[in-house]
Amino acid sequence: MKTVLITAFEPFDGERVNPSWEAVRHLHERMICGAHVVAKQLPCVFDESLRVLNETLDTLKPDLVIAVGQAEGRTDISVERVAININDARIPDNTGNQPIDEAIVEDGPAAYFSTLPIKAIVEGIREAGIPATVSQTAGTYVCNHVMYGLLHALAKQKGPVRGGFIHIPLLPEQAVKHQGLASMPLQTVGLALEMAISIALTVEEDRRLEGGATH
Amino acid sequence: MKTVLITAFEPFDGERVNPSWEAVRHLHERMICGAHVVAKQLPCVFDESLRVLNETLDTLKPDLVIAVGQAEGRTDISVERVAININDARIPDNTGNQPIDEAIVEDGPAAYFSTLPIKAIVEGIREAGIPATVSQTAGTYVCNHVMYGLLHALAKQKGPVRGGFIHIPLLPEQAVKHQGLASMPLQTVGLALEMAISIALTVEEDRRLEGGATH
Amino acid sequence: MKTVLITAFEPFDGERVNPSWEAVRHLHERMICGAHVVAKQLPCVFDESLRVLNETLDTLKPDLVIAVGQAEGRTDISVERVAININDARIPDNTGNQPIDEAIVEDGPAAYFSTLPIKAIVEGIREAGIPATVSQTAGTYVCNHVMYGLLHALAKQKGPVRGGFIHIPLLPEQAVKHQGLASMPLQTVGLALEMAISIALTVEEDRRLEGGATH
Amino acid sequence: MKTVLITAFEPFDGERVNPSWEAVRHLHERMICGAHVVAKQLPCVFDESLRVLNETLDTLKPDLVIAVGQAEGRTDISVERVAININDARIPDNTGNQPIDEAIVEDGPAAYFSTLPIKAIVEGIREAGIPATVSQTAGTYVCNHVMYGLLHALAKQKGPVRGGFIHIPLLPEQAVKHQGLASMPLQTVGLALEMAISIALTVEEDRRLEGGATH
Repeated sequence: MKTVLITAFEPFDGERVNPSWEAVRHLHERMICGAHVVAKQLPCVFDESLRVLNETLDTLKPDLVIAVGQAEGRTDISVERVAININDARIPDNTGNQPIDEAIVEDGPAAYFSTLPIKAIVEGIREAGIPATVSQTAGTYVCNHVMYGLLHALAKQKGPVRGGFIHIPLLPEQAVKHQGLASMPLQTVGLALEMAISIALTVEEDRRLEGGATH
Repeated sequence: MKTVLITAFEPFDGERVNPSWEAVRHLHERMICGAHVVAKQLPCVFDESLRVLNETLDTLKPDLVIAVGQAEGRTDISVERVAININDARIPDNTGNQPIDEAIVEDGPAAYFSTLPIKAIVEGIREAGIPATVSQTAGTYVCNHVMYGLLHALAKQKGPVRGGFIHIPLLPEQAVKHQGLASMPLQTVGLALEMAISIALTVEEDRRLEGGATH
Repeated sequence: MKTVLITAFEPFDGERVNPSWEAVRHLHERMICGAHVVAKQLPCVFDESLRVLNETLDTLKPDLVIAVGQAEGRTDISVERVAININDARIPDNTGNQPIDEAIVEDGPAAYFSTLPIKAIVEGIREAGIPATVSQTAGTYVCNHVMYGLLHALAKQKGPVRGGFIHIPLLPEQAVKHQGLASMPLQTVGLALEMAISIALTVEEDRRLEGGATH
Repeated sequence: MKTVLITAFEPFDGERVNPSWEAVRHLHERMICGAHVVAKQLPCVFDESLRVLNETLDTLKPDLVIAVGQAEGRTDISVERVAININDARIPDNTGNQPIDEAIVEDGPAAYFSTLPIKAIVEGIREAGIPATVSQTAGTYVCNHVMYGLLHALAKQKGPVRGGFIHIPLLPEQAVKHQGLASMPLQTVGLALEMAISIALTVEEDRRLEGGATH
């Protein structure tokens, strides 16, 4: 039986919840397309997040890994295309650490592309009536850090294990306190993530669909 | 028994649905706070919308009227503060009419303020975890037209009948086709409108809460 | 000889300059279309701003009045269509006063429309290659307060004196500290205001051009 | 004497001008910090743009290369951090070509980081009162294509030649036709690019300044 690891973060930046964990924890121990889903919360901390992730990868040996994070202000499910080898923290992480322009992996490649079928995932979620897009940047904070670290770890493994990152909007109850920022209910996000897992498990080759940006 | 009239619009601007009607029609024949709710669809047409509205007001003699409309791009439930006496159509209405800088009511006042307890409505919806704000402009299209016409009609009546307008975001299934625009599910919008009716029926005096804009 | 009064505000909300005054003070004592321009700074204070304005109107007896204010985040010269009879301050004014939902003029009309030829002004500024739009709301802060108070004062006068309000973006040097907000250089704003004065002095009847908003 | 190559694009996407070329051509044959500046226009065409660029690199053997492109909607001078090895065209290029998810360089690395002192450039431009930021994505269109191709070419050279990409906003006269989009005058952009060249020529080690994004 296949195992799927889906990760999310603890709250950060003064929030009391992190929508990524609220959505992901409901998928824990679920069966999706015949695969067993394990949900794991990561600290919003540089390095420590990757230590926990790598430990979980070693123990669980998952066949698919999707990391999820909060992107306040984004309006839809945004499936990240690429992670870059840089930490540049606009705000301190949850231990107060704020690295500026440091490599995530010394001598690592400049970037890793998501190995998820990102276009098929976006298309599938949209067909379910949920707004979704490909994103060309996961930022330079702990989300990008985890995405890069994940893809770096998976690249060193023997078998091909797919991995990637999905950013989600604020929850409505968070957006109440951030006037003007878009939101998406937990249930919708949960459904989208379930579809992402399902598509990543079943679609062999990604769809050739436009999902780019002019800048 | 009190009667509440809640109106919404037919689709416009190339959309196949109008979220306002999708949300409002589920409230038809509902009882809220002991009042009987009647939902009515208005055409997205200058003048004809007001003809239908005024006819309905005459027949129904409601104790409360809330008109609802779609505001693509807005992120939350936005409770309009004021309607202005002008038609200035950026796009043609559903009959192809596109008035520019014409008064809605010749010799009517420049504006009418909503007579709903707008601050209490925003506060109540937010307390339920749904993003909501006061909006300082309902535009200059059919939504503002209906809001102005409604308040003009109510101002001439004897008894004090509260009236106002609420703009709502796109539905998720609409936003799929408008990348980057925020959305709100039907269920959430429906709940918010139900609360708006309930608060408008029960809160006598509006709350003194900040809901302004610097510009 | 005709006299034009152009007003602007002192800095507020923690800014060290107000772009409206920076632009307007260069027009002081200028001759535009044969009219003498007087620039006057108003305090960013409810009531006191109107006291100074009314005093200046009494002394100067201008033939045209344009009030100008800062609108952080706006991208272009935005010519206001309407002022509404409400103070609802999102932030305190420069004396710490923060009125909520109070009428500007007790028993005053709900709103006044600008008596400037707003469409002709927008068209003229655009033809000079400077972005400009009609705005449907001047907010509920001191800018709207001054616009309403101005139009209320002019409405009571005998001769027809045109008046209105123009919002302008941040200056580039202000936007440096507000990442992501648009800006416009002083010189461009100054040119646009000069054109607004010129058009308001010479265009008798406003142009019938689309400048509306669907919401 | 050192040579600086600064490139820009021809108009695309229906525009009649490209602000990048309008700004860059004024720098042609200029001396900045003792270096000779050569401006070169590139076609907005996949592959052909790189053919022209590589030819120019071979002939000119510049000591510094900055490529510049239009980013409609951006509000400031945005100095790109990274280029990724993918073409994913949202719109066709100027020959009608629209590659989807194709590598720019087969077997090339996933990304190249700019070798310009991007933080020092942003800081210097800001100190001159012009809004500037680090951008985490150059998109997936011809701009990113040229940035990646440039850095790939420079990486294979012997001596260390710095290279990178800067996106600029629309010109005011373009923004007139795109209501709501920010703009920046040619003169301001030109000054910012001149400063970027100057800083890239003189600042050995980049400044350690925050310029990241949480997502």
